[in-house]
Amino acid sequence: MRVKMVLAYDGREFSGWQVQPAKRTVQGELESGLSRLLGQPVRVFGAGRTDGGVHATGQVVHFDVEQPRVPVERLVLALRGYLPRDVRVLQVMPAAQDFHACFSACRRVYRYRFVTGTFFPHQRDYFAHFADAFVAENIRSILEVLIGEHDFTSFCLKDNDARTHVRRMESIELQSAENGFDIVFSATGFLRKMIRMIIGTLLILYGRGQGALEMQRILEARSNALSGAPAPAAGLYLERVDYARG
Amino acid sequence: MRVKMVLAYDGREFSGWQVQPAKRTVQGELESGLSRLLGQPVRVFGAGRTDGGVHATGQVVHFDVEQPRVPVERLVLALRGYLPRDVRVLQVMPAAQDFHACFSACRRVYRYRFVTGTFFPHQRDYFAHFADAFVAENIRSILEVLIGEHDFTSFCLKDNDARTHVRRMESIELQSAENGFDIVFSATGFLRKMIRMIIGTLLILYGRGQGALEMQRILEARSNALSGAPAPAAGLYLERVDYARG
Repeated sequence: MRVKMVLAYDGREFSGWQVQPAKRTVQGELESGLSRLLGQPVRVFGAGRTDGGVHATGQVVHFDVEQPRVPVERLVLALRGYLPRDVRVLQVMPAAQDFHACFSACRRVYRYRFVTGTFFPHQRDYFAHFADAFVAENIRSILEVLIGEHDFTSFCLKDNDARTHVRRMESIELQSAENGFDIVFSATGFLRKMIRMIIGTLLILYGRGQGALEMQRILEARSNALSGAPAPAAGLYLERVDYARG
Repeated sequence: MRVKMVLAYDGREFSGWQVQPAKRTVQGELESGLSRLLGQPVRVFGAGRTDGGVHATGQVVHFDVEQPRVPVERLVLALRGYLPRDVRVLQVMPAAQDFHACFSACRRVYRYRFVTGTFFPHQRDYFAHFADAFVAENIRSILEVLIGEHDFTSFCLKDNDARTHVRRMESIELQSAENGFDIVFSATGFLRKMIRMIIGTLLILYGRGQGALEMQRILEARSNALSGAPAPAAGLYLERVDYARG
């Protein structure tokens, strides 16, 4: 049977989502915990391949199991003893046999968190620091350029293996938060490092006093030569994955 | 000359404030960084001896130096290269020769942070989890009992070396926060583990549906036999230390 699972993790001590030899990854810990609990080898498929240091409050995975010894609904509690403290399963439910955590997803929501003002050491792994004076309207006008369907080649690294660089950015929201502000991105999908490169570019343009016109120019260049380096992973959270069904 | 310094740290990877053999402590890192930067052995005196896992956004220390090679005002920036990423100096200023970070302090302010609802892995080192339904009025009425001058023996561990267990609790404020709520304690001083034992006791009474009367009984017992175990260090922050002057 196919199982869908929603989970959260702290990316701080992980070399990202995807299994890599001799590295500690979320997929690796999850597969190891599930395999031990269920007594059979389990391979999980995630909705988003987050990089090292990137967090998740709503990553989605699916996996197939044969006759689990534990009822699916009880996996949330049962897994506690099989997972490290930095990974936590929030929800488990049966899924349709053709459900795929990655390919069935119709929307991904990521949040990038900034602290304004004093940046305290206890925030360093969970926020980025916005060192400039904060003017919401300037940030909004730079980011609005990216809403809609675009070729996002300017905001991905050259070694990207995606077949197409076209994505539909549904919304980019600026939200005020306790110690600063968050930027929430919703899109059909994201390229590797896309949000961090958008944020890196935003920081450069904002710092220089440039605006929407320059962002438009960079987007249309379809080359990352003019874009900023990826902003720190620490501020980024995979918050939600939506599916048309299941 | 005597120097006063305000600093912040992430308590996660420290065995507390105070120097101990073979342990990583904030005092140890600070003395090592200052000694290397200033080219002379430096001993620092802190306002609060925070335990392992407890954070600070406004710890205060003082130390004496002879003719520093670096002007005092420039220490904030100069120290960056001599301190680990989890300690950050926020302010440095000359102090009167009789200023003492601990003994001259007239008020300490500590914040204890709770997450209500889902407790995510990335919050585990910086918040405690309030698993019950949150009713502000019930929490307030239990804690109000502690305001004023009291013998706080019921809320400290037996091995405490303080000469008196009498402290004046000036205020206890409940503040709503992004993912839960904070409790802010202001007092002339605190005994070792006092806030964590007050919180531990609060959680027990609240969970049992008991209120101010039971808290009064525990306070008056002057024994920690009825008190709760110390609540997790993760939620606690030394936020501010006030001085009548300097």
